[in-house]
Amino acid sequence: MSPRTALAGVFAPVVTPFEPDLRPDAARLVRHCRWLLGHDVGLAVFGTNSEANSMSVAEKLALLDAVVGAGLPVARMMPGTGCCALTDTVELTRHAVRAGCAGTLMLPPFYYKAVTDDGLFASYSEVIQRVGDARLRIYLYHIPPVSQVPLSLALIERLLDAYPDTIAGIKDSSGDWNNTRALLERFAPRGFAVFAGSESFLLATLRGGGAGCITALANVNPGPIAKLCRSWQEVDADAQQAALDAVRGAVQKFPMIAALKATIAQGSHDEGWATVRPPLVRLDSQQRAALLAALPPTYALPEL
Amino acid sequence: MSPRTALAGVFAPVVTPFEPDLRPDAARLVRHCRWLLGHDVGLAVFGTNSEANSMSVAEKLALLDAVVGAGLPVARMMPGTGCCALTDTVELTRHAVRAGCAGTLMLPPFYYKAVTDDGLFASYSEVIQRVGDARLRIYLYHIPPVSQVPLSLALIERLLDAYPDTIAGIKDSSGDWNNTRALLERFAPRGFAVFAGSESFLLATLRGGGAGCITALANVNPGPIAKLCRSWQEVDADAQQAALDAVRGAVQKFPMIAALKATIAQGSHDEGWATVRPPLVRLDSQQRAALLAALPPTYALPEL
Repeated sequence: MSPRTALAGVFAPVVTPFEPDLRPDAARLVRHCRWLLGHDVGLAVFGTNSEANSMSVAEKLALLDAVVGAGLPVARMMPGTGCCALTDTVELTRHAVRAGCAGTLMLPPFYYKAVTDDGLFASYSEVIQRVGDARLRIYLYHIPPVSQVPLSLALIERLLDAYPDTIAGIKDSSGDWNNTRALLERFAPRGFAVFAGSESFLLATLRGGGAGCITALANVNPGPIAKLCRSWQEVDADAQQAALDAVRGAVQKFPMIAALKATIAQGSHDEGWATVRPPLVRLDSQQRAALLAALPPTYALPEL
Repeated sequence: MSPRTALAGVFAPVVTPFEPDLRPDAARLVRHCRWLLGHDVGLAVFGTNSEANSMSVAEKLALLDAVVGAGLPVARMMPGTGCCALTDTVELTRHAVRAGCAGTLMLPPFYYKAVTDDGLFASYSEVIQRVGDARLRIYLYHIPPVSQVPLSLALIERLLDAYPDTIAGIKDSSGDWNNTRALLERFAPRGFAVFAGSESFLLATLRGGGAGCITALANVNPGPIAKLCRSWQEVDADAQQAALDAVRGAVQKFPMIAALKATIAQGSHDEGWATVRPPLVRLDSQQRAALLAALPPTYALPEL
């Protein structure tokens, strides 16, 4: 398996349902994952929108076991495994690889700021060597607005040179198209899979030779996003993109994760879905009503 | 026990030694802790300068057990227990309280940015209720340059009103004296212990009614810092402060944690001390030489 067989298409950083006492709810998660797969969306469980860093490693291991144990296809899984602590990242990553997951989405350690490329290279390098498994495929996770630890082009090149079979791609959540374009120009020709971090860049990313997108909105608008990813060379692609943008425009007026969960709760008539872990806060009823009113009339609420 | 019996004095965010394979080195840690206590410095193990967030919860539990098990006084311990995940924070905090630690230093969850005071209040509140132990004393950890999640005065007041016996104080590592002064003016009269996050604010903090400082430099300059804390009302206090500032001025020309460890390695003739975990990088020999040359001639290297 070479990087050229890398993952592609649309992935959702799958939102994590919680019980009223804030324990992760594996049954609801499996149901949501199955619904996403049914809309041709892959499973980037444990992403930013999954509240992954609000869960312990043990909680994530148990959830991954539940999702894999439910028989969902590991070939469509790219769990987030990057933690602050090297030992945590190694444990989660090793578990994901042994479970057969096709890739892992890996944040850099994000507590210390203004760290050097040498330090970040050493971080990824230690993980790769400690996991020590030829099946490991890492998708780098560049999300400076949240992690505050950017991954420079120079660092990516160095990682790709050192570990060409392991460094398989990137999710670019910089929100900066110039960065995505630079990634596409410099690294896509080497078989490096560039995923936009939002479906608002999906069409541009695909036109630039990218692999697809890993996006919050895939949790609540999976069908139309996946459709554009399949039909981006059709004449209506720009119109499809505009329709996706309209849905996002409504949702992102509100705190994203709470808004995604409120949308799922509303569509599936299951208020349990609205629960978030602190430090996040659920939408209040006024915000919920405003969100529903803002969604375009053509938008269909998710019915899990 | 009321907040008025809160901790005071000088604490070190104790640097964590690592084996060559990056495992935490409990024996070296205990030795360093004993040396610090001998200089009248308390143990804020698992702080930012401890590389605490580069270690797993299990690694920190084991280190705390080693330090407590070595018979060092829990009355002088304020371990850092704030993690991104609620469940991790609860586990570490519960362990520290049950071990008898006099306080815990608690970061807010730091992955998500721009979170609300409601969300941060809920985070601390959940931890307090889940730990459910009247002995719990929380020292809030305000370090926006690193955590990127500030603790506002309004939030602190709300926590103090809700949990007056539990919210015992704060470490202010904002580097902003106006913030420390506001904390002193608003909350010190309520028995809330304000610790400066650097010894460069020690004298001003004590003059303003504060409790002391929790500072990186206490790892390598403990005696003089503790001396100023005891003798701040003496006539030579300003001269003492200036001498402390000169040492800090030299060290902080370099990446702090690596510089602290290089200084200890040099003073104790033990190169094992120089090891850091990624994403940090140790000082190279040129940096080490420049650091040693920059230290004031009156400064004595630590000899553990």
